[in-house]
Amino acid sequence: MIDFPAGFKAPFFRPSSRKADELRQVTLTPGASRHAEGSCLVRFGVTEVLCTASIEGKVPPFLRNSGQGWVTAEYGMLPRATHTRSDREAARGKQSGRTQEIQRLIGRSLRAVTDLKAMGEMTVTLDCDVLTADGGTRTASITGAWVALHLAFEHAIGKNILKKNPLRDQVAAISCGIWQGTPVLDLDYDEDSKAETDGNFVMTGAGGVVEVQATAEGAPFSEEELTALLGLARKGTAELFAKQKDAIRK
Amino acid sequence: MIDFPAGFKAPFFRPSSRKADELRQVTLTPGASRHAEGSCLVRFGVTEVLCTASIEGKVPPFLRNSGQGWVTAEYGMLPRATHTRSDREAARGKQSGRTQEIQRLIGRSLRAVTDLKAMGEMTVTLDCDVLTADGGTRTASITGAWVALHLAFEHAIGKNILKKNPLRDQVAAISCGIWQGTPVLDLDYDEDSKAETDGNFVMTGAGGVVEVQATAEGAPFSEEELTALLGLARKGTAELFAKQKDAIRK
Amino acid sequence: MIDFPAGFKAPFFRPSSRKADELRQVTLTPGASRHAEGSCLVRFGVTEVLCTASIEGKVPPFLRNSGQGWVTAEYGMLPRATHTRSDREAARGKQSGRTQEIQRLIGRSLRAVTDLKAMGEMTVTLDCDVLTADGGTRTASITGAWVALHLAFEHAIGKNILKKNPLRDQVAAISCGIWQGTPVLDLDYDEDSKAETDGNFVMTGAGGVVEVQATAEGAPFSEEELTALLGLARKGTAELFAKQKDAIRK
Amino acid sequence: MIDFPAGFKAPFFRPSSRKADELRQVTLTPGASRHAEGSCLVRFGVTEVLCTASIEGKVPPFLRNSGQGWVTAEYGMLPRATHTRSDREAARGKQSGRTQEIQRLIGRSLRAVTDLKAMGEMTVTLDCDVLTADGGTRTASITGAWVALHLAFEHAIGKNILKKNPLRDQVAAISCGIWQGTPVLDLDYDEDSKAETDGNFVMTGAGGVVEVQATAEGAPFSEEELTALLGLARKGTAELFAKQKDAIRK
Amino acid sequence: MIDFPAGFKAPFFRPSSRKADELRQVTLTPGASRHAEGSCLVRFGVTEVLCTASIEGKVPPFLRNSGQGWVTAEYGMLPRATHTRSDREAARGKQSGRTQEIQRLIGRSLRAVTDLKAMGEMTVTLDCDVLTADGGTRTASITGAWVALHLAFEHAIGKNILKKNPLRDQVAAISCGIWQGTPVLDLDYDEDSKAETDGNFVMTGAGGVVEVQATAEGAPFSEEELTALLGLARKGTAELFAKQKDAIRK
Amino acid sequence: MIDFPAGFKAPFFRPSSRKADELRQVTLTPGASRHAEGSCLVRFGVTEVLCTASIEGKVPPFLRNSGQGWVTAEYGMLPRATHTRSDREAARGKQSGRTQEIQRLIGRSLRAVTDLKAMGEMTVTLDCDVLTADGGTRTASITGAWVALHLAFEHAIGKNILKKNPLRDQVAAISCGIWQGTPVLDLDYDEDSKAETDGNFVMTGAGGVVEVQATAEGAPFSEEELTALLGLARKGTAELFAKQKDAIRK
Repeated sequence: MIDFPAGFKAPFFRPSSRKADELRQVTLTPGASRHAEGSCLVRFGVTEVLCTASIEGKVPPFLRNSGQGWVTAEYGMLPRATHTRSDREAARGKQSGRTQEIQRLIGRSLRAVTDLKAMGEMTVTLDCDVLTADGGTRTASITGAWVALHLAFEHAIGKNILKKNPLRDQVAAISCGIWQGTPVLDLDYDEDSKAETDGNFVMTGAGGVVEVQATAEGAPFSEEELTALLGLARKGTAELFAKQKDAIRK
Repeated sequence: MIDFPAGFKAPFFRPSSRKADELRQVTLTPGASRHAEGSCLVRFGVTEVLCTASIEGKVPPFLRNSGQGWVTAEYGMLPRATHTRSDREAARGKQSGRTQEIQRLIGRSLRAVTDLKAMGEMTVTLDCDVLTADGGTRTASITGAWVALHLAFEHAIGKNILKKNPLRDQVAAISCGIWQGTPVLDLDYDEDSKAETDGNFVMTGAGGVVEVQATAEGAPFSEEELTALLGLARKGTAELFAKQKDAIRK
Repeated sequence: MIDFPAGFKAPFFRPSSRKADELRQVTLTPGASRHAEGSCLVRFGVTEVLCTASIEGKVPPFLRNSGQGWVTAEYGMLPRATHTRSDREAARGKQSGRTQEIQRLIGRSLRAVTDLKAMGEMTVTLDCDVLTADGGTRTASITGAWVALHLAFEHAIGKNILKKNPLRDQVAAISCGIWQGTPVLDLDYDEDSKAETDGNFVMTGAGGVVEVQATAEGAPFSEEELTALLGLARKGTAELFAKQKDAIRK
Repeated sequence: MIDFPAGFKAPFFRPSSRKADELRQVTLTPGASRHAEGSCLVRFGVTEVLCTASIEGKVPPFLRNSGQGWVTAEYGMLPRATHTRSDREAARGKQSGRTQEIQRLIGRSLRAVTDLKAMGEMTVTLDCDVLTADGGTRTASITGAWVALHLAFEHAIGKNILKKNPLRDQVAAISCGIWQGTPVLDLDYDEDSKAETDGNFVMTGAGGVVEVQATAEGAPFSEEELTALLGLARKGTAELFAKQKDAIRK
Repeated sequence: MIDFPAGFKAPFFRPSSRKADELRQVTLTPGASRHAEGSCLVRFGVTEVLCTASIEGKVPPFLRNSGQGWVTAEYGMLPRATHTRSDREAARGKQSGRTQEIQRLIGRSLRAVTDLKAMGEMTVTLDCDVLTADGGTRTASITGAWVALHLAFEHAIGKNILKKNPLRDQVAAISCGIWQGTPVLDLDYDEDSKAETDGNFVMTGAGGVVEVQATAEGAPFSEEELTALLGLARKGTAELFAKQKDAIRK
Repeated sequence: MIDFPAGFKAPFFRPSSRKADELRQVTLTPGASRHAEGSCLVRFGVTEVLCTASIEGKVPPFLRNSGQGWVTAEYGMLPRATHTRSDREAARGKQSGRTQEIQRLIGRSLRAVTDLKAMGEMTVTLDCDVLTADGGTRTASITGAWVALHLAFEHAIGKNILKKNPLRDQVAAISCGIWQGTPVLDLDYDEDSKAETDGNFVMTGAGGVVEVQATAEGAPFSEEELTALLGLARKGTAELFAKQKDAIRK
């Protein structure tokens, strides 16, 4: 065994061996679904989510005759997307609180960059189904769903249903956390379950924040730490925005 | 009609006529429930929530034989707590996504300041039932639930079930938002529905942040705005901590 | 220990120390809800029920285009209204048989004194939510709901929606039971759980009976006992009618 | 047109042409189910209910290790038991409030004459399924379920599971109502839907009352009317008790 | 004990003592329900199913304004139709997979011989409720439901709603199986639970096959065995068609 | 327009341009799931199903202490696996009858070739989730699930949980149908929706039939047609068995 001098401080090592501000390998594969008007298979490392955008020519009751459209999302996880099998929500007969929380977040995030009035009375439903889970499924979902939504709107333009794309900006999301006192970007499952603080940041291409959700799992965090996480998120989403642009160009 | 000179900029007015950093009148009435081990009726202006803490001598399956306790929360709203009657969730047969999101937040917030190991294998369930809703029901719930939980633990000490109170710190919550470009504290319903950004901040007595949830309803917000909201929240929760201390002394 | 002579018959004592024909202290506080068109907080001793009346400008499908209105009720209990916490019905996903039985009784009782044709096509929903339970929650609900309903109709008159109040009479309810062989009025929880017979009587201001539900918990009861209970109920509801009149005058 | 003298009072005619105190033809056929431990097909005129009693060697959780048994009931109606088809409750996914009310009443009525302690830790479930409905299904159910329960206990005696029959008395039920001002016995569907007052009376062989439920559908009723209904019920159940005795002798 | 020579092969004995190609005693009693437009009580030995056909003057949404009718089925079992009591599906809050599978099969089978266009926009719902179960409940249901459907259409002709009966042919069903290596007709419960292969065959009067469902419970079966089962089914349904003709003539 | 001579009979063309006895391109990709003990991504043309096998060290209640294992299946479809979006079953709160029918079939098919006693008290759950649907999802599921199950058992052998693979044989399934009078193999969605008869055949490697389900969508079919379909199925499954063997060798 190596004999360390007293006071030796180990260099920083994330379980994933990534640098503190390093994303996992992210790929966005457009057109991954055969039938959907828009789709994207998004991978953040091992995490894999299939995002499809389905257009329907009607709106929920509260928007009827408003001339305005709607964007909504549903989220699901295959039972064996996880390390040990989870119950199938359809068999249990209800969606968990976590599922509902996530699908509400995805819907809100996409509506934040969509000109609903420019859509006319149509609804786009984003289905984000997790094929493999390894942390960050909600942020991957938002990031991939934006691509699917963009492509669905382009599809509608091709069909002469829309004149121009109602998306006003890009939106992407990334998780950040504090791991052994250090703010780190894009937590995988292992890191997430051990992080002291865990946050999800949804940001726009123009640099604005759409949503922040940060939770202390262990000790409370400070304003400085929140600011550091936000800085990391800004860096991470900048990379995601570039990948989104590539994906819609394909 | 008054003839204003060009460029006149109206002074800042909140719909509630409160100053930007002014809480509504907050009261915390301990012992509001006849039967519960601990309870608190909390009012933030017109908003009124009855918080009860119920002790049960067993834990959920995942904690059995762990020697550790559990703190959990349920949230509900009387059908006519709101301006127009809402459906009764028991009659509809399920809790909404919003309800589940809120009760998960309340539970997490209280566990963040509780030494679960010091509880032994008991469960405390916090029921937060909104009698009148006028914005800020979730933050009022957290603030009042802490008082109810404290009193329930004191009750257990009085019954020789616990030696000392397992609460390590206080926890309280407040909403902040950006209203006509100005960060303001403690939004009521009117303000909340018109705010550009709306956030909930859960903080500890020691000044740490337990949870931040901030959402842009209209335009995205900036890092500076988030910091300003956090500053307001710190001021607001400081006042709430003082009121909590008064309440448990009664 | 005192040495009683053989054949000594103890004087009658109710657990509550009340006389056989004595109501608990009853208060009816009108306007207890901020938002409802009509409301009343009713207390029968410790039992406490918030009754709200909500007006909606439409009727159930079976009354559409009938020119007739509808009065219906929903009943609920806060989880910790009871000595030990009960499951939240919204979380369990269904209302118990007891809950449904009670809300059907409340609705029927109020419709018995309402001129539904005089309402036009509106629905009034009475929500009766038990804040503290100590026996007699369904009879307190009916008694308080009448006040809430009356006030809601007055509110509609004030808004020029109705010309006159469609209530034809008062309705109130009280429980009676047989306790150690003696008929007694207005059972509290303790008395109720030990009574041999337990009945609920719904009566009108004009002295008619709208509903009788009497159940032998132990030995069956006789016709004479039923008549005695009805007599007590008549006395009790007479006092309740006076209190209702006071409440709507405030 | 016949010219009636002023003050002519039409003789009393029930829609069914029965006398005021006349039951419909009642038959109780024991052993109507091939598999059940006890069973009875009960007919009140056209109304037809199959009652089965099923014995299981365990009790609900609240009675475990109490040495005491339990008697409970479930009630159902075939979708086309009624004039127009009703929804199937299994397909709708829940039992109506009416169904739950009735099955609770059946269970209570039978427990009132059963010595639960003498049963040991067994449960008997009475299933009362309405094959044809023409009014009075709940009273027919109680009357027939007593026969099924008696036979099931006899079956258990034959199997040496019980030493003696735990039934302390008979129980039967009948509806009565006020029809055009006259109290009448055993309402069929037509009469029931036009009656001013409608009541169900559950009585024991020894002449005691187990349960009274009387509801004014139109005008409230008086104490005298309630007494008259009870008198009719006593006469009607006397006939039912004789038929029950015949049925268990077969 | 009798001493059999080696190689002795026992003669074939079914548990029911029936010949391999012998049906149980089958009776079809038309008009068994008082209220339904068409009905039939069908018995296959001990198995007893009440089939009712209810006509409604509307169609499901997917057929609105198509000028075409619909035939559908629901299936249920009384809790004590079986040897030991089964849960009531209405109380459990959902229909089992088996129930849904059977009711879909019944509906498909009847639609196969109905000219839906000739019905106009009406729906006939077949309710098949098992009063006693002893194997073959789904095949008895189909066989009896055809009679009920036929009678309901005749009823509609009598009411001048239809001009001619939209049934193009008869349909009946029977189970067959392989028992100790021998193909046998019409399995009862005992035989069914021990059969190596179990199949249900739905056939038309003209000799066509509408549906085959054959399952190997033990060893897989061969093409020859399937053909043998189909031959038995043809013989069995020929007898059922004759009985159906008798039933609709009554 | 071409002038065909009278009596000209067009050559046979399937919509898919395949020969009558030609499978779509089938691929079986083992190990497609990161976390599952066994998995297979199966493609039949465009149809794509992810099959995972999850091992759990316990059995359902009816098998406890029997020393025997269990194999079961669940089936689901991503909402946009289909041409137009289908409702998410988890959001609707229940699985459709079709879903239940399919998952029961998959489970039965795999149990038919598994030595449950050789498994010991473990359960393997096969999740078959359809990513893209184009006809034949249930037969693809069975075919792929066998590979997943085989690999899961091999995994258990590698972990010393099992000594040998409890699979006694292969099982695979294929659909066949009658299209314009001609029996054809492996229907895609287009063909399936136009076929007169549609059947699913589950067969074993040894050539036995495990399950046949054949339904006439239009005209009834004959014994000869059923035999022809079975012959096609035998040819098709022979090719599938070869592909399964390749897949488990990878």
